[in-house]
Amino acid sequence: MKKTRIGIINVTGYAGIELARILHGHPGAQLVSVTGRSAAGQKLGAVFPHMSTLGLTISAEMGKVDLAFSAMPHKESAEVILPLLEKGIRVVDISADFRLNDAKDYPRWYGFEHPSPELLAKAAYGLPELYRTDIALARVVANPGCYPTGAILALAPAVKAGIITRDIIIDSKSGISGAGRSLNLQTHYAEANEDVSAYALGGHRHLPEITQELKKLGLARPSVTFIPHLIPMTRGILTTAYAPLVTGRIGKGEKGKEELRQLYLDFYQNEPFTQVTEAPPHTKHTWGNNLCLVYPTIDERTGRLIAISAIDNLVKGAAGQAVQNMNLMLGLPETTGLEALAIYP
Amino acid sequence: MKKTRIGIINVTGYAGIELARILHGHPGAQLVSVTGRSAAGQKLGAVFPHMSTLGLTISAEMGKVDLAFSAMPHKESAEVILPLLEKGIRVVDISADFRLNDAKDYPRWYGFEHPSPELLAKAAYGLPELYRTDIALARVVANPGCYPTGAILALAPAVKAGIITRDIIIDSKSGISGAGRSLNLQTHYAEANEDVSAYALGGHRHLPEITQELKKLGLARPSVTFIPHLIPMTRGILTTAYAPLVTGRIGKGEKGKEELRQLYLDFYQNEPFTQVTEAPPHTKHTWGNNLCLVYPTIDERTGRLIAISAIDNLVKGAAGQAVQNMNLMLGLPETTGLEALAIYP
Amino acid sequence: MKKTRIGIINVTGYAGIELARILHGHPGAQLVSVTGRSAAGQKLGAVFPHMSTLGLTISAEMGKVDLAFSAMPHKESAEVILPLLEKGIRVVDISADFRLNDAKDYPRWYGFEHPSPELLAKAAYGLPELYRTDIALARVVANPGCYPTGAILALAPAVKAGIITRDIIIDSKSGISGAGRSLNLQTHYAEANEDVSAYALGGHRHLPEITQELKKLGLARPSVTFIPHLIPMTRGILTTAYAPLVTGRIGKGEKGKEELRQLYLDFYQNEPFTQVTEAPPHTKHTWGNNLCLVYPTIDERTGRLIAISAIDNLVKGAAGQAVQNMNLMLGLPETTGLEALAIYP
Amino acid sequence: MKKTRIGIINVTGYAGIELARILHGHPGAQLVSVTGRSAAGQKLGAVFPHMSTLGLTISAEMGKVDLAFSAMPHKESAEVILPLLEKGIRVVDISADFRLNDAKDYPRWYGFEHPSPELLAKAAYGLPELYRTDIALARVVANPGCYPTGAILALAPAVKAGIITRDIIIDSKSGISGAGRSLNLQTHYAEANEDVSAYALGGHRHLPEITQELKKLGLARPSVTFIPHLIPMTRGILTTAYAPLVTGRIGKGEKGKEELRQLYLDFYQNEPFTQVTEAPPHTKHTWGNNLCLVYPTIDERTGRLIAISAIDNLVKGAAGQAVQNMNLMLGLPETTGLEALAIYP
Repeated sequence: MKKTRIGIINVTGYAGIELARILHGHPGAQLVSVTGRSAAGQKLGAVFPHMSTLGLTISAEMGKVDLAFSAMPHKESAEVILPLLEKGIRVVDISADFRLNDAKDYPRWYGFEHPSPELLAKAAYGLPELYRTDIALARVVANPGCYPTGAILALAPAVKAGIITRDIIIDSKSGISGAGRSLNLQTHYAEANEDVSAYALGGHRHLPEITQELKKLGLARPSVTFIPHLIPMTRGILTTAYAPLVTGRIGKGEKGKEELRQLYLDFYQNEPFTQVTEAPPHTKHTWGNNLCLVYPTIDERTGRLIAISAIDNLVKGAAGQAVQNMNLMLGLPETTGLEALAIYP
Repeated sequence: MKKTRIGIINVTGYAGIELARILHGHPGAQLVSVTGRSAAGQKLGAVFPHMSTLGLTISAEMGKVDLAFSAMPHKESAEVILPLLEKGIRVVDISADFRLNDAKDYPRWYGFEHPSPELLAKAAYGLPELYRTDIALARVVANPGCYPTGAILALAPAVKAGIITRDIIIDSKSGISGAGRSLNLQTHYAEANEDVSAYALGGHRHLPEITQELKKLGLARPSVTFIPHLIPMTRGILTTAYAPLVTGRIGKGEKGKEELRQLYLDFYQNEPFTQVTEAPPHTKHTWGNNLCLVYPTIDERTGRLIAISAIDNLVKGAAGQAVQNMNLMLGLPETTGLEALAIYP
Repeated sequence: MKKTRIGIINVTGYAGIELARILHGHPGAQLVSVTGRSAAGQKLGAVFPHMSTLGLTISAEMGKVDLAFSAMPHKESAEVILPLLEKGIRVVDISADFRLNDAKDYPRWYGFEHPSPELLAKAAYGLPELYRTDIALARVVANPGCYPTGAILALAPAVKAGIITRDIIIDSKSGISGAGRSLNLQTHYAEANEDVSAYALGGHRHLPEITQELKKLGLARPSVTFIPHLIPMTRGILTTAYAPLVTGRIGKGEKGKEELRQLYLDFYQNEPFTQVTEAPPHTKHTWGNNLCLVYPTIDERTGRLIAISAIDNLVKGAAGQAVQNMNLMLGLPETTGLEALAIYP
Repeated sequence: MKKTRIGIINVTGYAGIELARILHGHPGAQLVSVTGRSAAGQKLGAVFPHMSTLGLTISAEMGKVDLAFSAMPHKESAEVILPLLEKGIRVVDISADFRLNDAKDYPRWYGFEHPSPELLAKAAYGLPELYRTDIALARVVANPGCYPTGAILALAPAVKAGIITRDIIIDSKSGISGAGRSLNLQTHYAEANEDVSAYALGGHRHLPEITQELKKLGLARPSVTFIPHLIPMTRGILTTAYAPLVTGRIGKGEKGKEELRQLYLDFYQNEPFTQVTEAPPHTKHTWGNNLCLVYPTIDERTGRLIAISAIDNLVKGAAGQAVQNMNLMLGLPETTGLEALAIYP
């Protein structure tokens, strides 16, 4: 297979280095350039000893590549991506800079004016389960946030089928790597271990992203409460979503549960990475791989949908999905380089 | 202080041995008898080396005591308690056997016919924040479940004030010790570590207990979805509860949040163990002590109450609350023996 | 590549299922048969949901295969292997049943008479770094124990070069998965989490294996103390080995450290899976892959060698090394199917 | 009981806040002043919400106290302690500044000239098991390091009895809280979780402290290799010490083990906080309390002593031992305020 030349912008965070790991075994991609600001000039193996076999050196500027991943923080990501796009380099952006369709959401949620609002309409939202064709054609793909990936995949079949109302509660539990590699008291081991807490109660930045996608799936005026929690593990997000069922659309009792399950199975029947499970999923069953496990059921007493999803936040929630998007952009089989099973236990 | 003679039935589980720990430092109670079936005849220190200084031997039968704690499993607990009550021994029951007021709930939720339905009406529900006087007078106190303790304390002020509707979602995250000391693949270290999952989606046994108490607080026909999750830590339960605010009862914006906070502060103003926090609580801040930390706020976009509570499942969620109940029954200051601060980090 | 038909005996333990994971991506091997006693008749995906895509069913008897891995417990392993060998099926045995050269060690250390002492001399000890040629030719390969793998690779260059005396201390720290998937109070989550302890102080079964190999490397009458410890993590073994340097063989100060380092680099220069690191290794840098990281240094104050190794106990310590052995037996490139990088963080 | 006025210098680290926790329940001590540089002016409860009930405010300068604990880093600790001593305030110093008897060791091991070498001779080394009388009389007590506490208590009976040679290996495994509350990549959750590594291979600062005390116990020219390891848990240090037995001093076989055990039992027979256990100790059995558990045995094959100790690094390894020292200085029963049992599980 002829290999496409690939670059990673800001390889020194967890998403960046996870990209490097996944690309290492990819038969159609050759990682040729990795950048990082503070670490520029160092061998990749000096920062990440387990990556020394790649033989790469971290540079300040992106080398000659055909496609680049940006793992920069938001705002800065758009700044480095725009010149690349002008050179004809296609980009998968792991930051939030091309996720929101409405430029006005950037000052409100991210605190900056978007430098290129016209590009927002052209960017594809990189959730292949919903936008496979767009992604294949896009110059820039906005890789979804980790929480939105789990939340949208848990709810999409139900929303699309019109079986739930707009009153949605999304309660997510994330491993600590989701908070990144930058030091912080909240992610200091002795503080985070043996602890669980909720955060971002005033509104997490992933909320407008979730709401936007639920709207596009057909839900009128979504009324979403989304609360993320940090739990003491390294990887994984479990999302438990709750919503009232629209009366009369789904049967009662076991029959209703079976209808619901079939609806989800149909929706995801051709998906290589989203699987409907027979029991409530465990994040451990996605550890290190690109699966999203989805389990829908009905709380019969209250007539509510409960939909649970499990992902590895750094794979399907970041780098794995980015590679899945790259595969689509390059016309490769979607699963290329992503076939590894979860590592258990 | 004259010491009351205390016994623990089934000391060999986590709740039982936690009772022994707390009673060890209690100035008004003398632990004189501990029972356990499989371990009968052994020194307590042979089963739990860190308890050897207590000098107790596990016996098959309860010795001469004034008050007993039962840490037996449900059904068996009632069986051992009834004869004690007949002898005039007061009992704090950590099992579920006296929690539900309606005897019909026992076959439905616990799979057995209650042996003494008439006693259910006389038992006090051992949540001092709601039933302090009843507890002081009761012959048998039903110590609340770990999840109900966190859920009810999170919601009680809002329910009592009539500011939320009946559509309640309760999403709880528990440390693994809540699953007990009996061996099980789900609590095998390599399975539970680095994993999170939901369980009991068909209806957890703590649901009727929560619903019963919300009703008694004044909520008509509660429609509660309660989903517990296991997270990889030893101790602690964080409960995130969601409910729509009744329109017009609470102000908008920051003013509403302040009203809500004041309502909670007023409700718990004299409580020694339930504190309203200024930020979302961490279970770590209750590690090993009897506090319940409660944080209420409003999701302004959706008009929903979000109320979060944190407890140590083995202390306020079990043994600590049981000792708090004992203090009330014995007429001791409620905090006696429970003054220790959380162990941090 | 034509695929060899492979079987796994006792796939339901952690080593067995890890073999299935690694073989899944192996281009030269086709996993066609998996056995397991209690689970016979079940789909593999029913026991391990994340393995459902393999489409295998657990059987009671091994199907038609060219090579089999045995992940049975010791004693039973030999019993199932002997008939396979008679049928001409080559075997990699993950149990201890062919590791010790002297049949008399089996009653002493494992409590059973070896059923086929004559085979012990023909079995290869499956540590490719030492016995590559033997392994390639062997009918049965004894896959090393997890602790011996780390300990021998840490010490081999020093022993071979004759620079240390026989007074060796080996202190190992293992993740909990090393204790297997069978339930046990010691590996119950709440017991193992936030705890560390030493075990097998009277002599761990891996001691004669370590001693045997150090002897074969040229150390006369090794006097080895080996103490394993359980630490609260799922995967990984760190081994810290201590031994007095023979006077005059290695230089003083930094020069001596550099000589030592060079000696190790030379010893492992062509090894694909054993790397000499520039800093004390982290088990995290081997998570999920087949590397053994080795770091030698000198305690100048005392004239002692300190040699540290890190492995993933289920990969280089079990299933990965078994596949490495299989590759050698099949004449495949040694790294086939084992190229994946460690999963970090 | 009349309460002595107590101050804590630098309350904002883990040792400092642990002191506050323990002193909270102490009947003979009143914590009246806490200092901290960056946090000066803040309520203690603003930095540590679980400590808000103490009602203290962090100040820049120590208030009027009778005895102070210093939890400052080394070098700075001596600087703040000297003026206090001049005012007649007695001090327990948790830093290393008064631990080493020889002033020349400070530039070598800690990189600064000791500001008051003459005081080193007057300071007591705060290990009550060895220096109870000195501590009671001292103006300044040097609280031992966490590793030395575990190492010395593991070895003291054997050294004192002259049954081991000078060739000692000490391999320690510490929870992450030992690295303090300052942010660091090594203690970032995602880096430290599921990992174990050795550090300070060139010589940890606790080595001269251990060596000094072994000498004072009668060991001529100790040749000690001490290697600490970080393991993924919050609290606890397990130390495994190895040393050759002097020929002929201890019997063979079980008889020798029993003699050794009796020697340890005799040595610690009156100690309230050092217990000789019947099985290898678990750090979990000391979680949150002041015990040091010690287990000695003999490796019969090699004639070596193996002595293992377990402590909570923040209690017996820091704040608890400091309070034990304070009790001695104030003439209080040594166990005052330290009676709490370990928190298990």
